Amino acid sequence: MAKSRGRSRGRTKRLDEFALIRRFFAPLAADAPGAFGLGDDAAAVAVAPGRRLIVTTDALVAGVHFPADETAQSVAARLIGVNLSDLAAMGARPAAYVLAIALPRRCDVGWIKAFAGELGRQQKAHRITLIGGDTVATEGPLTACLTALGSVAKGRELRRSGARAGDLVFVSGSIGDATLGLKVVQHGIAGLGKRHADALVGRYRRPRPRVRLGLGLVGLATAAIDVSDGLIADLEHLARASRCTAEIDVERVPLSAAARAAIALDPRLRRRALTGGDDYELAFTTPPSRRDAIAALARRLRLPLTEIGRIRRANMGGKGGTRPVDARDGAGRSLTFADAGYRHF
Amino acid sequence: MAKSRGRSRGRTKRLDEFALIRRFFAPLAADAPGAFGLGDDAAAVAVAPGRRLIVTTDALVAGVHFPADETAQSVAARLIGVNLSDLAAMGARPAAYVLAIALPRRCDVGWIKAFAGELGRQQKAHRITLIGGDTVATEGPLTACLTALGSVAKGRELRRSGARAGDLVFVSGSIGDATLGLKVVQHGIAGLGKRHADALVGRYRRPRPRVRLGLGLVGLATAAIDVSDGLIADLEHLARASRCTAEIDVERVPLSAAARAAIALDPRLRRRALTGGDDYELAFTTPPSRRDAIAALARRLRLPLTEIGRIRRANMGGKGGTRPVDARDGAGRSLTFADAGYRHF
Repeated sequence: MAKSRGRSRGRTKRLDEFALIRRFFAPLAADAPGAFGLGDDAAAVAVAPGRRLIVTTDALVAGVHFPADETAQSVAARLIGVNLSDLAAMGARPAAYVLAIALPRRCDVGWIKAFAGELGRQQKAHRITLIGGDTVATEGPLTACLTALGSVAKGRELRRSGARAGDLVFVSGSIGDATLGLKVVQHGIAGLGKRHADALVGRYRRPRPRVRLGLGLVGLATAAIDVSDGLIADLEHLARASRCTAEIDVERVPLSAAARAAIALDPRLRRRALTGGDDYELAFTTPPSRRDAIAALARRLRLPLTEIGRIRRANMGGKGGTRPVDARDGAGRSLTFADAGYRHF
Repeated sequence: MAKSRGRSRGRTKRLDEFALIRRFFAPLAADAPGAFGLGDDAAAVAVAPGRRLIVTTDALVAGVHFPADETAQSVAARLIGVNLSDLAAMGARPAAYVLAIALPRRCDVGWIKAFAGELGRQQKAHRITLIGGDTVATEGPLTACLTALGSVAKGRELRRSGARAGDLVFVSGSIGDATLGLKVVQHGIAGLGKRHADALVGRYRRPRPRVRLGLGLVGLATAAIDVSDGLIADLEHLARASRCTAEIDVERVPLSAAARAAIALDPRLRRRALTGGDDYELAFTTPPSRRDAIAALARRLRLPLTEIGRIRRANMGGKGGTRPVDARDGAGRSLTFADAGYRHF
């Protein structure tokens, strides 16, 4: 442990933690009185009577969750995006966040400035503030851990477990763009035009958590989950939690023009679109009686909400196991996904 | 980014995240209804009317904050300890925590089992529960980030900024054991007996956050901080936040028998004891009128609370700068500390 805390580290002034906090992070906490200017041991958060605090935490590791050469802006946007997506899936209104970040020594002031700048833009967009954090050094890859706090009216949080037989399955926006964007970044997609490629990469680089949709679904959706591991995998999570089967018509899964263009060039990419992660759309269920309300919500948010299937009572699979997702193609044939989505190991 | 999320990673089943969570982490969340068995996108926390939520986050990196070969138990105890210490410094009652952990591939199931086992023991000791988390892989050192949630009666939280001229300065327990314990681990202390060495290493390996003391200080202390960066550095933080000077008699700083034995062998270790980190004692201020109440609290907690100095109005230093801590030896001579404590870079 040559690099353990000791005197020599104490004298390394290249990036003094306290100066860093004062210069780049304290301004992000200026609007939150309970953050105490990031100058105390912890932060205070008021939770209004009748509301419940909702908490989520997500860690991102360079080279695992994003390319090691990703820009500071992209890392910041992703960090906020993935966590607010979890709050959105619960129907929570985001309020504040704490951030712990382990920085490699090669991270210079410019990187941190750009990172904090994007955090500031994200804060403004989502009306949240930084209220606490920890900045440490690492000999390994950049690792950032964000804990987001929000609130929801007591007992009104959206859960994965509320889907019931007969409910419709919806998904927001379009599916598969982010994983296809990652493919563009990693290997390219031969023949795909620049406009489509840029659209996919943009979806990958800058997740847009469906916060307003989550708020709108409170009282409408019976269950919800964010699409982070891949549509099929996340519907499996929802169906298992609800002890049901989700029957999905894969032809109805909404695809962007860019994703359709990519799939036209390489039909195998359709499967990747259904199982790849990082979309940060919401998948949710609702009784058929609320179909019109969902359509009205889609109009109000100017966000497509597409019916892609239906919840059935849990179905025993061929080998005695349950099949939480029954995905069928246009001809009604069941599709199987050996690798339904991202697992973290 | 060869190791970015992709199909090959998805098939690596050695440590399946979901199995890991079910087996080791979900049991830690069993007592918290709002944790939803760790099976939802986020957790819900009820905050009682009249109380405010207190939040803190701390990250630990192997090889930086603890030796890379530290045991799983020690890492877990430290992770809980450092965060609850921050809550204690605010006078907050701990309630719950979320944990994000980036595990190197060499972490096997045995390591995780031992880690979760110690988390369970810590939970029981501090009456807290895990309510959410994220488990990811890393190519770098083990990195763990814990966010602890507690609560305090509205407006009663202890702050660093409340010290006033005339207040007494107290510190709990004994100072310097942890940093001397780290020295034992790293280089040994020549001539120190096994019993003393073990005592110091134990203090380093298993921080004991002063949670009950923090609760007891609400309404008694005017300012408080936990001693994590080193006594002198942390008193500097408190004095700066309070715009005062803390005048400290270093002869009165409480030392354990083990620390005294180490310092007798090598007098330079006294300076290390005053500036080294990781004690996780509390330093606090209180008006002289509350001296008896502090003594009563010490008896009730069976924890030494030692008066080590006094708060003065901010004093301009010799070169026009303020000197937030004026540390004097028994003869009244001012001591200077070029390196007052741990800085994280």
